[in-house]
Amino acid sequence: MPRIVIVHPEAVSAERWRIDLGRLLPDHVVETWSLGSPPADYAVAWNPPADFFDQQPALKVLFSAGAGVDALLQHPRLPAGLPIARIEDAGMGDQMVEYCLHEILRIQRRFDDYQALQQAGEWRELPVARRSELPVGVFGLGVLGLQVARALAAFGYPVSGYSRSPAAHESIRCFSGDGLREFLGGCQVLVLLAPLTAQTRGFFNAERLSWLPRGASLINVARGPLVVDDDLIAALDTGHLAGATLDVFAREPLPADHPFWRHPRVRMTPHVSALTLADLSARQVASRIRALERGEPPGGLVDREQGY
Amino acid sequence: MPRIVIVHPEAVSAERWRIDLGRLLPDHVVETWSLGSPPADYAVAWNPPADFFDQQPALKVLFSAGAGVDALLQHPRLPAGLPIARIEDAGMGDQMVEYCLHEILRIQRRFDDYQALQQAGEWRELPVARRSELPVGVFGLGVLGLQVARALAAFGYPVSGYSRSPAAHESIRCFSGDGLREFLGGCQVLVLLAPLTAQTRGFFNAERLSWLPRGASLINVARGPLVVDDDLIAALDTGHLAGATLDVFAREPLPADHPFWRHPRVRMTPHVSALTLADLSARQVASRIRALERGEPPGGLVDREQGY
Repeated sequence: MPRIVIVHPEAVSAERWRIDLGRLLPDHVVETWSLGSPPADYAVAWNPPADFFDQQPALKVLFSAGAGVDALLQHPRLPAGLPIARIEDAGMGDQMVEYCLHEILRIQRRFDDYQALQQAGEWRELPVARRSELPVGVFGLGVLGLQVARALAAFGYPVSGYSRSPAAHESIRCFSGDGLREFLGGCQVLVLLAPLTAQTRGFFNAERLSWLPRGASLINVARGPLVVDDDLIAALDTGHLAGATLDVFAREPLPADHPFWRHPRVRMTPHVSALTLADLSARQVASRIRALERGEPPGGLVDREQGY
Repeated sequence: MPRIVIVHPEAVSAERWRIDLGRLLPDHVVETWSLGSPPADYAVAWNPPADFFDQQPALKVLFSAGAGVDALLQHPRLPAGLPIARIEDAGMGDQMVEYCLHEILRIQRRFDDYQALQQAGEWRELPVARRSELPVGVFGLGVLGLQVARALAAFGYPVSGYSRSPAAHESIRCFSGDGLREFLGGCQVLVLLAPLTAQTRGFFNAERLSWLPRGASLINVARGPLVVDDDLIAALDTGHLAGATLDVFAREPLPADHPFWRHPRVRMTPHVSALTLADLSARQVASRIRALERGEPPGGLVDREQGY
């Protein structure tokens, strides 16, 4: 029987994967990895230890247990030719839409200002924008970015999107390449949903943040290192940016002494904007293994050069 | 030329109505009311003074400048036979959807708990419900209630609705009459969107609030007196209700010593969930006056016995 090995730093998650995949693929051996595990045909991996690959010479495909593969691609002993597939969506798109829509409604309807007025005991009506007056930009139009962009457009916000290669999507004003400055200049809210690659690391530095209009807000639900922390803090301190909602950070958990924790213009959540739903993820991996065994391409394969 | 009089306690609003209607109905005299104004054919009124109607014997229709007519119907000298029309929607439905969706997403995704964790400097993931696990009830299925209920159902929440008379709406589980207890028992979030009438005043007292499941949340965007303040505070204090979002109050502005201001489980806004959009309202009144003058019914007429 083909063997599937699960390697995951959290025992509960590893066990969940083992049980779910075991049920979905009863004609496979599914086991969690430990030192000396026999060579497997497939691996489901999240942050595998340094020596993992040395003991797995027979792997046909490596399944990332999440959507982001930046950490996996930097693994020092990742075999050069090993195909990698990543989780696509698995319930994450719906959650991203919820998270972003909540934040954008909060900005539009000024709920934070109203909360401050309540705390001050002050009864006062504030001028508020209509949806049509709050243009939103989505940086990265992959599976998740596109789903968020479409949902926001359907809800009535004017939506632009920026992608590496030119794209065209109904109801989204699409930018790429040289259009970055024009794209950013039109964003009252900027949502980051791009993968972390050599190109996107440190992308939002002081100069590019300055291309956003004064009073804009940033929502980062992608990867922390897309943004230069110090440059973001400077833009918030001068008031060029009105606020930032951060779900991801260069180091997670965010170190206790990082200024984001206490910055009055930063709202943060601990990388929970979209959790991979275990049952949907297991079903996706199982159906891809079935496809492979029928001789079909498995879907979700990563292009290592592009980095996602 | 037919005369239209505007009577509104806020001078800016009165002037706005006068200008907008003057532009839309150039073949009418439009003026703001003052003592001794000549008798008019139509009035647009918000909280008219006690003696207003004594000097207006020729009124054919009274247009309420807002959606709620409870204050107008209690005017001591309102002529018995005078038809009253009220603003319907005029952009308010969209705003109600925004307000309610924001609050429900906040509850579902536990953004308040995450804000508290940030303040405590604590990095911790919390269990979160999916949309399908958060049943929402809408009390009152008029124009606004129905629009909110439909939007929430389209977004993926299981939605029930309660109305005075039996109703049937696709994708909404409809209750009426005796079904109240069953309706409330199934609401994890209850949105109040019913008019204030003799029947709804004080409706949500200790007993009916106790019919909500433990841990439910209340959103009142209708009228303050639908809820008995002390009973709501008691239900919040025991933890039977997890929270309340209140946009409306028995007395507005809410008196400075009212416990809602500082209650840790109350979020409040100063009656801003849906502002009548001036341009849309003026267009609605103008088109109703045109209909009247063509001999057609104007729409939006209030049934005084029902109270809305």
